[in-house]
Amino acid sequence: MSDARLYFDLPQPFALKRGGVLTRAQLAYETWGNLNAAGDNVIVLYPGMSPSAHAARSLLDMSPGWWEDMLGPGKPIDTQRWFVLCANSLGSCRGSTGPSSIDPQTDRPYRLGFPELCVEDVASATHALLQGLGLVSVRALIGCSMGGMSALAHAALFPKHAKNAVLISTAARAEAFAIGIRSLQRQLVMADVHFQNGQYQNSMDVQSGMGLARKLGVISYRSAEEWRVRFGRQPVQPQHRSQQAFGTEFEVERYLQGHADRWAGSFDPCSYIYLSRAMDWFDLDALLPTIKRQTLISPLFQRALVLGVATDILFPLAQQAELAQMLARHGTQANFSALPSVQGHDAFLVDMENFGPAIARFLAGI
Amino acid sequence: MSDARLYFDLPQPFALKRGGVLTRAQLAYETWGNLNAAGDNVIVLYPGMSPSAHAARSLLDMSPGWWEDMLGPGKPIDTQRWFVLCANSLGSCRGSTGPSSIDPQTDRPYRLGFPELCVEDVASATHALLQGLGLVSVRALIGCSMGGMSALAHAALFPKHAKNAVLISTAARAEAFAIGIRSLQRQLVMADVHFQNGQYQNSMDVQSGMGLARKLGVISYRSAEEWRVRFGRQPVQPQHRSQQAFGTEFEVERYLQGHADRWAGSFDPCSYIYLSRAMDWFDLDALLPTIKRQTLISPLFQRALVLGVATDILFPLAQQAELAQMLARHGTQANFSALPSVQGHDAFLVDMENFGPAIARFLAGI
Repeated sequence: MSDARLYFDLPQPFALKRGGVLTRAQLAYETWGNLNAAGDNVIVLYPGMSPSAHAARSLLDMSPGWWEDMLGPGKPIDTQRWFVLCANSLGSCRGSTGPSSIDPQTDRPYRLGFPELCVEDVASATHALLQGLGLVSVRALIGCSMGGMSALAHAALFPKHAKNAVLISTAARAEAFAIGIRSLQRQLVMADVHFQNGQYQNSMDVQSGMGLARKLGVISYRSAEEWRVRFGRQPVQPQHRSQQAFGTEFEVERYLQGHADRWAGSFDPCSYIYLSRAMDWFDLDALLPTIKRQTLISPLFQRALVLGVATDILFPLAQQAELAQMLARHGTQANFSALPSVQGHDAFLVDMENFGPAIARFLAGI
Repeated sequence: MSDARLYFDLPQPFALKRGGVLTRAQLAYETWGNLNAAGDNVIVLYPGMSPSAHAARSLLDMSPGWWEDMLGPGKPIDTQRWFVLCANSLGSCRGSTGPSSIDPQTDRPYRLGFPELCVEDVASATHALLQGLGLVSVRALIGCSMGGMSALAHAALFPKHAKNAVLISTAARAEAFAIGIRSLQRQLVMADVHFQNGQYQNSMDVQSGMGLARKLGVISYRSAEEWRVRFGRQPVQPQHRSQQAFGTEFEVERYLQGHADRWAGSFDPCSYIYLSRAMDWFDLDALLPTIKRQTLISPLFQRALVLGVATDILFPLAQQAELAQMLARHGTQANFSALPSVQGHDAFLVDMENFGPAIARFLAGI
């Protein structure tokens, strides 16, 4: 399969927020559409925790991306109008430098030797990429879930670089309930005997712990309401019934196992716990005094669309309402909309019927 | 410490719903108050999954019980009026026969050799105890969480034995979301290398897996709303900060760890997975045809109070509303009340201000 990823060497040494430094670090990214002559049609897409830069197909990589129905010619994020860039987050394992990359100091993978990583570092690295490409102005940042935090960090750290924002199922800070869930997920990974304090041979060795963490992830990403209709109490077909004691009996268990199986080996366990912790650390409030000093409380954006759904238990709707209010208080023309999706936190990935038009309308007006 | 538990030898062989048979099985139970001359002041309390029979202190055991503020002289369940009995569930490990008990066939603990256990078996065993004590009529069953399922099974299997019911934060069936959570909890226990397919030496060996399952339990028992106010983003005190990588940083993590630590070794891992699975299997609908044949669709109870809270994600409020409607459809005078507690599924254990008066009012009227 061909690969649409481009690679950008970050300026070095690349300093991280909590004191670490990376040398020879890079970001993998993809783009869609064409930069116009004025250079004012740039949209930067910040992905959630696990997706790659491959948000949608392009001529170089025709495999469907993680936001295939949202991004492309004639789609809500219309690549006939916009030049869209999506970078794999710094710290991830899908082409960008992260804990599974080779540490030039040791010629071995960083693993737990990777420096402490924050959402702010993800934003700084992506900003450096944009600077490197000469994209001095961004028409809109679009961020989903963790990507919304990255977009907020971007705006806080680089005032006036991005004019507008679409912030989806995200929050200005991690709250206790989500911290509890993510903290437990990290422990599930690290409790796997094969994790070996980060010295596993390859990701697949940690498939048990990663699979359990993924199941908890999927539980927190969807909703009871959706599953009641979708699975109910449906038993698995006899051929899928496990022979072992306490094996799979209900369709919902098979669904979770399917997610765990597909996840196995596909994401680096150390990247997972670094990015997970970065979300827990994120608190926009802690960045705001910096903004105040730098810009005398200028608004984070000119306009922002904040979207969420009532069935999201990981980033509850109240956090999006609060975020919109906070943006408005600082001068952004913020529009908050609660969409009626039943799919919980993951709705933005699957409920195109509601998310597509909302995003298209906003982009048409900026 | 003295012990208020009494023990009842179940009739033997004691047949279980899914085909198993127990010999020399017993139930541990406690009682409060006095049986009146008419024998018509009996209340049977069905506990949730993990609590013992020790719901409240008595002269024989002055340690506080799990529902200390609800049960006693002058309390909402007033033991000056009622003779209250609470049995440790069959299959549990707090005095009643369960997987950690000695199998008379092998002289070793049953562990995974314990027969398949259903909520209906918990009800049948408790009913046998009541029969054995000559308690031919029960004024009210009170069941919380899994205990509510046990109470429903009791009424379905033994029509007209219990006149009334208080059904708290419970459901007529396990739904997909709760099944997903409990299935994952069982896997966390069984994934512990020390679980050894049930051949661990003692409960404490499985403390890692049981601790992780407990954390997921506590996450599902409380609510984001409660934790936002209670913990926010409060960091742990420096002396509680873990030195290891990815250790405890936030108070909510320390709270979860505290729960895991207190849980370690206090509950048998096999009892845990047996009772957990019993809940997943429970579906009152599947029992109703039996009722219809036996009693020509008589109501399950004369009167029932169904309580729940909107912040419960494990047994969502919609399930209590649905249960009340279903009871009413079959002729019970059912009263459904949504209490404004923020503590989620666990609210009935801690929010006495709302639960106490609601239960007291109902009991005053029966």
